[in-house]
Amino acid sequence: MEEKVKISMLCEFYGTLLTKKQYEFINDYYNNDLSLSEIAENNGITRQAVRDIIKKGEKKLFEYEEKLMFMKRTLNQEKKIEKALSELTKIQKEYSDKQIANVLEDIKKELNCLV
Amino acid sequence: MEEKVKISMLCEFYGTLLTKKQYEFINDYYNNDLSLSEIAENNGITRQAVRDIIKKGEKKLFEYEEKLMFMKRTLNQEKKIEKALSELTKIQKEYSDKQIANVLEDIKKELNCLV
Repeated sequence: MEEKVKISMLCEFYGTLLTKKQYEFINDYYNNDLSLSEIAENNGITRQAVRDIIKKGEKKLFEYEEKLMFMKRTLNQEKKIEKALSELTKIQKEYSDKQIANVLEDIKKELNCLV
Repeated sequence: MEEKVKISMLCEFYGTLLTKKQYEFINDYYNNDLSLSEIAENNGITRQAVRDIIKKGEKKLFEYEEKLMFMKRTLNQEKKIEKALSELTKIQKEYSDKQIANVLEDIKKELNCLV
């Protein structure tokens, strides 16, 4: 996974554990595509200060993932659910029985909420 | 959910974020059913010191759950997967087609790993 995408995802998982500034700057930099200079200007601080705050926040995100592994577990889980979903779709196509198709559709809807 | 069960589960989720002592004492108290006095004796400290360490650890567990909500999300997810599993079992029973039964069994096995 690309580093930028990884940090953005980690921030979705653990962002609430960061300081407000760390969260805001990481969000601005990785999700809103602002440059360090733009964030610095918006906040009236130096570019280096912005970089330091982002780096410290990133370090925390990686540390939380190393200890809790929620992102790794969630991605594994999603992979399994997606596999189950694609198998359910296959069965749906092969079996034209309307009743079974409806039940399978319901099951898929429920599982789809989890990915 | 009973408080004791809740703390024990929270410790499974966030235990790696506690200090070694907090984790050990909470585990001894809630999972191994040791009394505060027994833990105190085993560690050569007072009963009150044990209680303080456990209380501090519990507070951290609740704070992490309040911020991250991984336990709540996981329990919701498990409920949905269990519902899907029970519906799959129903279809399996109604449809005697062997091929479809086998595919459904495979899907159930995958989903079962997630609960």
